[in-house]
Amino acid sequence: MNGPLGLFGELFADAQMAALLDDRAALQGMLDFEAALARAEATAGVIPTEAAEAIGAQCKAELYDIAAIGKAATLAGNPAIPLVKALTASVAAIDAEAAKWVHYGATSQDVIDSGHAQQYGAAWRLLLERAARLASALAELTRRHRHTPMIGRTFLQHAVPISFGIKAANWLGPVVSFHDDFMIYGQSAHQLGGAAGTLASLGEHAEAVLQAFGRTMPSIGAVNTPWHTERQRPARIAAGLGIFMGHLGKMAQDIALMAQTEIGELAEPEAPGKGGSSAMPHKRNPVLCTLILAAAKRAPGLVSTMLAIIPQEHERAMGGWHAEWRTMAELFTITGSALNQMVTLIEGLQVFPERMRQNLELTNGLVMAERVSLALAAAIGRGEAHHLLEEASHICIASGRHLKDVLAETPALAGKLAPGEIDKLFDPTTYRGATDAIIDRILALYEEEREYMDSDD
Amino acid sequence: MNGPLGLFGELFADAQMAALLDDRAALQGMLDFEAALARAEATAGVIPTEAAEAIGAQCKAELYDIAAIGKAATLAGNPAIPLVKALTASVAAIDAEAAKWVHYGATSQDVIDSGHAQQYGAAWRLLLERAARLASALAELTRRHRHTPMIGRTFLQHAVPISFGIKAANWLGPVVSFHDDFMIYGQSAHQLGGAAGTLASLGEHAEAVLQAFGRTMPSIGAVNTPWHTERQRPARIAAGLGIFMGHLGKMAQDIALMAQTEIGELAEPEAPGKGGSSAMPHKRNPVLCTLILAAAKRAPGLVSTMLAIIPQEHERAMGGWHAEWRTMAELFTITGSALNQMVTLIEGLQVFPERMRQNLELTNGLVMAERVSLALAAAIGRGEAHHLLEEASHICIASGRHLKDVLAETPALAGKLAPGEIDKLFDPTTYRGATDAIIDRILALYEEEREYMDSDD
Amino acid sequence: MNGPLGLFGELFADAQMAALLDDRAALQGMLDFEAALARAEATAGVIPTEAAEAIGAQCKAELYDIAAIGKAATLAGNPAIPLVKALTASVAAIDAEAAKWVHYGATSQDVIDSGHAQQYGAAWRLLLERAARLASALAELTRRHRHTPMIGRTFLQHAVPISFGIKAANWLGPVVSFHDDFMIYGQSAHQLGGAAGTLASLGEHAEAVLQAFGRTMPSIGAVNTPWHTERQRPARIAAGLGIFMGHLGKMAQDIALMAQTEIGELAEPEAPGKGGSSAMPHKRNPVLCTLILAAAKRAPGLVSTMLAIIPQEHERAMGGWHAEWRTMAELFTITGSALNQMVTLIEGLQVFPERMRQNLELTNGLVMAERVSLALAAAIGRGEAHHLLEEASHICIASGRHLKDVLAETPALAGKLAPGEIDKLFDPTTYRGATDAIIDRILALYEEEREYMDSDD
Amino acid sequence: MNGPLGLFGELFADAQMAALLDDRAALQGMLDFEAALARAEATAGVIPTEAAEAIGAQCKAELYDIAAIGKAATLAGNPAIPLVKALTASVAAIDAEAAKWVHYGATSQDVIDSGHAQQYGAAWRLLLERAARLASALAELTRRHRHTPMIGRTFLQHAVPISFGIKAANWLGPVVSFHDDFMIYGQSAHQLGGAAGTLASLGEHAEAVLQAFGRTMPSIGAVNTPWHTERQRPARIAAGLGIFMGHLGKMAQDIALMAQTEIGELAEPEAPGKGGSSAMPHKRNPVLCTLILAAAKRAPGLVSTMLAIIPQEHERAMGGWHAEWRTMAELFTITGSALNQMVTLIEGLQVFPERMRQNLELTNGLVMAERVSLALAAAIGRGEAHHLLEEASHICIASGRHLKDVLAETPALAGKLAPGEIDKLFDPTTYRGATDAIIDRILALYEEEREYMDSDD
Repeated sequence: MNGPLGLFGELFADAQMAALLDDRAALQGMLDFEAALARAEATAGVIPTEAAEAIGAQCKAELYDIAAIGKAATLAGNPAIPLVKALTASVAAIDAEAAKWVHYGATSQDVIDSGHAQQYGAAWRLLLERAARLASALAELTRRHRHTPMIGRTFLQHAVPISFGIKAANWLGPVVSFHDDFMIYGQSAHQLGGAAGTLASLGEHAEAVLQAFGRTMPSIGAVNTPWHTERQRPARIAAGLGIFMGHLGKMAQDIALMAQTEIGELAEPEAPGKGGSSAMPHKRNPVLCTLILAAAKRAPGLVSTMLAIIPQEHERAMGGWHAEWRTMAELFTITGSALNQMVTLIEGLQVFPERMRQNLELTNGLVMAERVSLALAAAIGRGEAHHLLEEASHICIASGRHLKDVLAETPALAGKLAPGEIDKLFDPTTYRGATDAIIDRILALYEEEREYMDSDD
Repeated sequence: MNGPLGLFGELFADAQMAALLDDRAALQGMLDFEAALARAEATAGVIPTEAAEAIGAQCKAELYDIAAIGKAATLAGNPAIPLVKALTASVAAIDAEAAKWVHYGATSQDVIDSGHAQQYGAAWRLLLERAARLASALAELTRRHRHTPMIGRTFLQHAVPISFGIKAANWLGPVVSFHDDFMIYGQSAHQLGGAAGTLASLGEHAEAVLQAFGRTMPSIGAVNTPWHTERQRPARIAAGLGIFMGHLGKMAQDIALMAQTEIGELAEPEAPGKGGSSAMPHKRNPVLCTLILAAAKRAPGLVSTMLAIIPQEHERAMGGWHAEWRTMAELFTITGSALNQMVTLIEGLQVFPERMRQNLELTNGLVMAERVSLALAAAIGRGEAHHLLEEASHICIASGRHLKDVLAETPALAGKLAPGEIDKLFDPTTYRGATDAIIDRILALYEEEREYMDSDD
Repeated sequence: MNGPLGLFGELFADAQMAALLDDRAALQGMLDFEAALARAEATAGVIPTEAAEAIGAQCKAELYDIAAIGKAATLAGNPAIPLVKALTASVAAIDAEAAKWVHYGATSQDVIDSGHAQQYGAAWRLLLERAARLASALAELTRRHRHTPMIGRTFLQHAVPISFGIKAANWLGPVVSFHDDFMIYGQSAHQLGGAAGTLASLGEHAEAVLQAFGRTMPSIGAVNTPWHTERQRPARIAAGLGIFMGHLGKMAQDIALMAQTEIGELAEPEAPGKGGSSAMPHKRNPVLCTLILAAAKRAPGLVSTMLAIIPQEHERAMGGWHAEWRTMAELFTITGSALNQMVTLIEGLQVFPERMRQNLELTNGLVMAERVSLALAAAIGRGEAHHLLEEASHICIASGRHLKDVLAETPALAGKLAPGEIDKLFDPTTYRGATDAIIDRILALYEEEREYMDSDD
Repeated sequence: MNGPLGLFGELFADAQMAALLDDRAALQGMLDFEAALARAEATAGVIPTEAAEAIGAQCKAELYDIAAIGKAATLAGNPAIPLVKALTASVAAIDAEAAKWVHYGATSQDVIDSGHAQQYGAAWRLLLERAARLASALAELTRRHRHTPMIGRTFLQHAVPISFGIKAANWLGPVVSFHDDFMIYGQSAHQLGGAAGTLASLGEHAEAVLQAFGRTMPSIGAVNTPWHTERQRPARIAAGLGIFMGHLGKMAQDIALMAQTEIGELAEPEAPGKGGSSAMPHKRNPVLCTLILAAAKRAPGLVSTMLAIIPQEHERAMGGWHAEWRTMAELFTITGSALNQMVTLIEGLQVFPERMRQNLELTNGLVMAERVSLALAAAIGRGEAHHLLEEASHICIASGRHLKDVLAETPALAGKLAPGEIDKLFDPTTYRGATDAIIDRILALYEEEREYMDSDD
């Protein structure tokens, strides 16, 4: 469970998620399917209850040799066939009669898809736990910095003042909605369809087995319509993960940009040796942002594969299905790892309000030009005001003077603003508009979702 | 509305969808935003009601020169800025006072995102209409062929018999759920955030304007949290379209495979000159399948772009936002066109039950091997039965004899099956398992959804 | 040729490239194929010379109705079939005998692939012209700023000093090699294979026609092996464009980062109204970088489509081929436009050496820590020196003092450096290593390639 | 070297390629860089020769703990930093003086990129070996079936006869050119640039070290210009692999389609238990095609990631570089495995000329319609002949009669063809056009390349 992941592996994976996606978990997922199938068939009167019990007793991953099954998989094209053989032998060794009923009526894809469904379900739950922790840290950040002024940036240029709190709230929003997304995108489902999706092999009992199977497994989504070549389901999961990874990438990118040497408004949490360079002793590289961005840059290509393979042939695919396996595992792995790194990053994020304030003042008041312009709009029209402020801005940039001073000397503005109003207009802390309403809205959503998330368990 | 789309354009677009996505519609969408903003600001007491009316009166696409605005957009980086200038001039010509209030407090991205939201909303509605028509044709096909036997195919090889009805039902399922998807993925929303997402420019009135704006526009999704660089929204729409295109691709691929010269179970609707070849007089190429597949092959790359650009910088993006525009338009265009072509294909699909029957019999009974194997499982165990049938299958393939005859001469099977049972086992029409239950389930979903869809209007 | 490209179109396309890729050029490309085919067949004695001349005389795009051919294409699945009909009618009107020989022995894919080859060839030549102009501007920038010191940045953090000249040289390198890439990736070829790639229709004359056709067309690549479903060729072109777009994206990203308000080392060329904001009068947004980055973000998805459709079925594809058409046109369009914008950007780039110098000094000498560390390595070992400098760096950051001063007080370093050496170590202009050798190497490559490029014409 | 690859791993990887890409090989690659760097620096007189020797002696992967370095990598953001520490300690234990000079002047990216270059070089050589074996098998197949007639298929429909030999030759062509591609795309290069790409740390010796380093390593490509953020190089390798995978996908798809139950012209090599089904005893699934197609479907998404990350920031990337690592390893792994599977598939491919012949005759002569049409063109014109044959084809399809018989009764054709000519026209074996010339051309290319490939060693 905490085994090492290799030379590069620890950067993009974590042991806890890796354990949910490894071969042992895959094997147990497939065996759990076989046990559940036998139980369902016993319930439906298709096989003896004793057989189901004997089969269930052998459905333990530790009884089987992963390497041997893996090698045999190359002949069969998948590991379900050698696994079924090994399980049958295991059952036969203790109950020859029961061995007759192993995997009865099912097909390889039923085993593998159901095994994966179980793994993906567990992986989702872990992601949700981590997302809840991230949301909590972001809500705290939002509250703490509701009134911390900083510059808003558009096209990487200073725009108008905002608060760091609304920036954190905008990071929080999509994390909150990730729990809902799980209900939409994350609906993994077990699979039971038999050779060609009709369960014909189970004859008149087919529907009863299907229903019993649906009840017997701790299934996330509905199971009663086989989906062997209806691959929107895994594609949706992939899309949901890819979209969430995009958001983590947005957060990491914002933080890395704000941590630039020249900007210095944020820094990653410090730790001895963290972010060092083999060449430069002074370096403290934003390692967490780097690794999260690396994961975010890989997700779209992986998702595009999952979309490209939706068109699977007839009743079972020529390769499209097989292409899903590593792709999905990789997506869950990097999302889990990036989310972990983001939790560490946000929980220990260093915020420097003083630098935010300094940067706000860097442009000699230019960032308040919009406000002044709109304050003048009633008097002289939005267009004319915009034009005057554009000209004044040019003068400021060329001369290095403060906008306030340039405006004071602009004849066209004489008498247009009440005395003292100009100073008020240049106070960034009062230029907030709907900031508080927006922050409150996002925090309220978070609180709502939090109760709901807690009630999951 | 029915203008020509060029030399290659008609193959991947249709005039009706094209009209919703063209420059005129884009311009009107942006103007509708300006009118709605003015109305909302009047409601909130920020600008005079007369100004809002004067502005609204000039918000008609036909008053503006698309080419001139487009040319000017290269300086500004987007067409919103020259459009606002042109609109201001238009309003000023009739009401100088009102011209002061044009675009008051908003930013270019508010205009463009809201304009696109309006276009995407209209495009979705057209897709839903077409999907409803496709669903209806597929439901009819399902009902008609519920009992038409054909071979199920896995890995492009004969597997076991199914009915063409369950195949059609499996095509129908995801089309039905597309209406639900629309509620999830399709939630396009207008945008109002001002320069950096706080509506600071509107001061104390910001929240009131935001609320009024939300009410005043025929918005699909919530609007009260600006999402300038929270781009999960367009990414979800893209993912939803891409996943649906994948399903259309699956259908087209199945049909093209079934229409192969050697298989001949389906054919595209005929029309004079349709599917001809410039070289070969005898050709009737499956043109509709070809074009649908072409669209399906393009969607994953387009969606991957939408995912890759989710990480947008700070409060406005450096290129990521701009990359969305053509990508989204292309996705809607090809999905609309492919859906149109699929409606034509399914409504006129030629089905040849006789060829299905002939193909079923092509393998001398091998396709019933699973059924015989399972019938024997109770007597001799699933493993042993599987093994015996494998051997018998080999003999059939080598000798060209019928499986029934080979089995009759297999000593190990003597007396294992009741007389007459063997003939029953070889009747494909009775090998249906849960077929009817599954078909009924999908049709029931369709009927439910249909009522719901009808109530939309 | 200079027609408007619509509301958003001008941002991502330019009229000159658009004209090479539009319907008229496509039509002429297809007609040029028909003329060349007829000529080759006359040369090979398959058809009368008079027929070839009569056909050639009708191969003028202006004689045909693009809209009508486009509409008819939906029945046929491609525009070649209706075009051949229209051309045949045209020829018949003047020479009934010649009309018999129109398109003799060829197939639709021959026409369309050859037409596209001609268009892509022209588009490549335009790209090369623009690349040559960009290379020239970059070489000039490299020379001018060979000794302009600035900070090198790794992980968006200050690393060690470099010169702006080497940065420009690194931008130049891949632009120079783009000319070579053209010889590799850009080898577009005409196509002649007949119905199934054997030219069987031309019987014993097939090879002679193939050879004559290869000679008669101004073909870029070899033509004598048909490649109807061997689609590595277009995929290579796409990959070459995508890789080049990636480089333009790297340049635009570097420039946008250096143009950030807080960094201010570069700025886009100024023009009245350029980069303005509809909300903020002071804004000068880096519009060119934004649009280039938008194009760069779209390219990978488009290329992935071209790769995904390489596996085309048998002797002609089910959709894969058709998916190429719009994808390739889009790739050429955005590459052409981004390259144009990059030429404008580099030719007018504003460089602020003073700000580069100020930024260099921002960290109180920390950026020289590597140099000091290595200077000490001989005396105390690389590891120990690295460690001491790490500690000194911490002290600097915490105290705001200069590294030079902190080092002066470090007992372990007493006497390790000669007097005066410490000052030399802190001079960024002498920390150049192989800078000049690398710059010279890249400039030499440019000069070599330039002669070669000039000799093309 | 032949260790097991897990439950699913054997399907998409092989032990030989895996060994070239595993952590041990990565570690050795990085250590080889450190040894070569020390050698080069000794050559250039920067460090003592004894130090270089002492360092070289410790550059053996077995001396280091991969798991420990991997764990430490999470702090540093990459494994080079802890590796350099461990190597320094190792050297210090035997020669404290030499330890001072470990990694002197280099940066982490130099180590990692050079280590990867070494691995990719080895992986390319293995791919070339396998490609040579595949080419040999395909050349043999081409020669053997030069005159084996089969139907050519376009849009999955019968077109005109071809020979299986030309189909095999078309599969061969791109495999032959893969050796050339290697010279273009496969030029992996070592990296040496120091902290920010200028090797400033080596002062006046920088260029001499760079030159010595270039000579000392068995480098594939030029090394003398650092390319830390010029990532076209890995992108080209990725594109080359992706394009080749596309070709393997095309071959696998063609074979799978020809192996369909209804077509039966090809079959995968047989082996006991191969391609069985857990449900259906009669199944022999095309397992090799399936797995190759699975790999081919994954490649485009992986390549798109490599393209999307070309724009890397300034002098070292924020995540883009890190995203390359797993992506490249995965691309080499699946290409290696798919190529292996393709060698097995082609070497043991079962070809059924009798079934090819039967399928040729399936359409009652329709597939000769083009030939008849062109034979008539001289007499009645291509257009009129095409039209007559279209009509006759319709009659054949409707009536089930042979085209020859229908034509015999067509009044308009009376006397247009010499007696006996009609029978000749219906002989598919003489409808070959340029088939032999094309086959000869491809085989000649193969023979040329083969000599060249042999001379590599």
